[in-house]
Amino acid sequence: MKKANPPLSALHLIRKKRDGGKLRQAEIEYMISEYTNDNIPDYQMSAFLMAIYFQGMDPDETMSLMHSMMHSGKMLDLSDIKMPKIDKHSTGGVGDKVSLVLAPLVAACGVCVPMISGRGLGHTGGTLDKLESIPGFRTNLSAHELKKQLEKIGVAMVGQTAEIAPADRKIYALRDVTATVDSIPLIAASIMSKKLAEDLDGLVLDVKFGSGAFMSDHKKAKLLAQTMVQIGRRSNVKTVAILTGMDNPLGENIGNSLEVIEAIEALKGNGPADLMEVTFALGVEMLKMAKISGGIKLLRQKIESGQALLRFGELIEAQGGNPLVIEDYSLLPRAMKSLKIFANKTGYIHAIDTYAIGMSLVALGGGRLRKEDDIDPGCGFKTHKKMGDHVDKEEPLAEVFSNREPRAQTACSDLKRQYKIRRERIEPKRLVRERIG
Amino acid sequence: MKKANPPLSALHLIRKKRDGGKLRQAEIEYMISEYTNDNIPDYQMSAFLMAIYFQGMDPDETMSLMHSMMHSGKMLDLSDIKMPKIDKHSTGGVGDKVSLVLAPLVAACGVCVPMISGRGLGHTGGTLDKLESIPGFRTNLSAHELKKQLEKIGVAMVGQTAEIAPADRKIYALRDVTATVDSIPLIAASIMSKKLAEDLDGLVLDVKFGSGAFMSDHKKAKLLAQTMVQIGRRSNVKTVAILTGMDNPLGENIGNSLEVIEAIEALKGNGPADLMEVTFALGVEMLKMAKISGGIKLLRQKIESGQALLRFGELIEAQGGNPLVIEDYSLLPRAMKSLKIFANKTGYIHAIDTYAIGMSLVALGGGRLRKEDDIDPGCGFKTHKKMGDHVDKEEPLAEVFSNREPRAQTACSDLKRQYKIRRERIEPKRLVRERIG
Repeated sequence: MKKANPPLSALHLIRKKRDGGKLRQAEIEYMISEYTNDNIPDYQMSAFLMAIYFQGMDPDETMSLMHSMMHSGKMLDLSDIKMPKIDKHSTGGVGDKVSLVLAPLVAACGVCVPMISGRGLGHTGGTLDKLESIPGFRTNLSAHELKKQLEKIGVAMVGQTAEIAPADRKIYALRDVTATVDSIPLIAASIMSKKLAEDLDGLVLDVKFGSGAFMSDHKKAKLLAQTMVQIGRRSNVKTVAILTGMDNPLGENIGNSLEVIEAIEALKGNGPADLMEVTFALGVEMLKMAKISGGIKLLRQKIESGQALLRFGELIEAQGGNPLVIEDYSLLPRAMKSLKIFANKTGYIHAIDTYAIGMSLVALGGGRLRKEDDIDPGCGFKTHKKMGDHVDKEEPLAEVFSNREPRAQTACSDLKRQYKIRRERIEPKRLVRERIG
Repeated sequence: MKKANPPLSALHLIRKKRDGGKLRQAEIEYMISEYTNDNIPDYQMSAFLMAIYFQGMDPDETMSLMHSMMHSGKMLDLSDIKMPKIDKHSTGGVGDKVSLVLAPLVAACGVCVPMISGRGLGHTGGTLDKLESIPGFRTNLSAHELKKQLEKIGVAMVGQTAEIAPADRKIYALRDVTATVDSIPLIAASIMSKKLAEDLDGLVLDVKFGSGAFMSDHKKAKLLAQTMVQIGRRSNVKTVAILTGMDNPLGENIGNSLEVIEAIEALKGNGPADLMEVTFALGVEMLKMAKISGGIKLLRQKIESGQALLRFGELIEAQGGNPLVIEDYSLLPRAMKSLKIFANKTGYIHAIDTYAIGMSLVALGGGRLRKEDDIDPGCGFKTHKKMGDHVDKEEPLAEVFSNREPRAQTACSDLKRQYKIRRERIEPKRLVRERIG
């Protein structure tokens, strides 16, 4: 006689996961849908999440979790759009403005990019915050507006709507206050439930590790990448992950409008080497998925010809922003005061505490600790040196931009502490470390 | 320069415990007092409890937890009572009516017993439910009434008042619905926070293990006993634990009024051997703590002389019950119908699933699954055989008492399944297995 499954109950399922049991699809679906519908209280969900933190989830469970979260809300229907629909997601890092360069660049190559992004929290910035430093720029497009824009210019960069993966939003808010954020199955299911609701043909993931990343450990980042790639493939969406180092802030500028300027410069062909390396690595994957030939040569050509920049201008205009910012940076919010920091000795830069630099931006007002915090879009840093670079004593390491004198002073002394200079030469680490998929 | 402690926050403390950190006294005190005062929400406490479930607590942390819970409410002040104040606590088992025999027995020897007990939940019965099967018996005495009664007759058996350890009550309710009950530091702190609020000189713990106990595993039960003994001693209260087996229901009767009858019989000198063995083992420890000489001889003499029974009658009368039940069991609620179950083969009883028997009592109506359930005080079982006993085919194993025919039939077939009979002889396990302290 086959033993019947017991009736579903949150208590039973918390205990099952706590004891290392494997949850069935129907059990995970029950937890997620009943929680989203307020039939399971927060205190049971938080115990369940902490049990997952300790016991983990196997690929089937993680897939079920993603699936339940994705189906908790509406899915985009982009079937009318005949272009290949490919998106990119980054796990976030300090100075990471890749999306701003990459989305118009690959759109200019013929890829449709329906990019739904998030806001900055803690040490990592958010694409939406950066875009909103452009006067008039709207990120809250409806599903209908998003579709219209994609049909017209092949690219849109918007925030998550209330209808997409509401379970993820509710669960994320709870994880944030119960120390259950840092769990690979929970992170993977959260990211993929939103991205796979976009009706994609392909997804490229930029999984960052190192001192400035959400996940500093290389092994953990790799496991996260593998988990997400597996979820994507099991969902019949081509998925590739690139593991990139976050031992330095990416590019030179950190701070919202400063990063918009750097992205525009990149689209003009003046991007810093590290920013372009990551952008091209991801772009090549996106082109491959879209079956568009040409690779990095095509990407370079779209920049040289100005078509990528043009597409960014169209994007800004389509979303209500002032496209003149492309030529006139004074239209962007800027900090009036700048202070430089200098090397205190001659030598090589052995380490940069990139996480601490991200948190200095928060302290300066350019990021947020809590979702409801306002940000100052004009402040930030310009860095002049990377890990491995040689510096002379009294040579400038970075510049602080702020409208508030005392905060700027504090940021300077904070920032200075994040650079470790030693006499011995040191090889910089490779940026694009590994490809999963 | 010494690093300053960060400001206290629930999120930080959940993370610290999650990562295996050792919590300071002030940190635990913060979590417990802020939670009791509704300043920390249930969802953070349940994540914290689950983190404790996985990471455990060291003796200092467990002591701090007990201390914070105990001081969340009022403490009894029994300093006016000059007799040695000794209590007994059992972790609970099926048929465990030891308190009903032991409290009046040791009180008759000159020990003051301010016993605060609980109600039955799940497979284990509760002393309060058993006592309340006596018509008129009140268990909700005020602290003042309790003190007066102790001064007069040296014994009282009451329920926990709202003022004693409110943190424990709130946390226990949350543990119950978040699968965080089964954690040794949480169990130890919960029990000891209530017992040590009784202003005791000594405490004897009956920690049960085996199929009918809350904690079936011997090692775990021993660890729980050691943890509680350590907490008691660090609180300057003489504490000893006795580990007793729960491979059989204790005594013959299971069910509220049936257990009261068996306890009265025990006080009349007709107690079953196993019940008396545990009662005397605990009683001897209580006398030792009270520095009263005589040991088991004195206990036997108090039964033979009728003084222990007399004290039980005084206890019933003092708490509003009808003391005539001692001589006339028909004054107690009784089930009208009885059904016998019989052995299906000749052999020796190799195992009795005592937990399942406890749950059969719940199904019969004599116990509760949820705190708010009502119970039928008259129903229950009378068992005739213990593990190791020889039985002949068709010899009665037990009797079911119930007023409801269909439930009685179900209980019979349930009960029958709990006895494992084999041809080979088997030695019964020792009942009192170990003394900790």
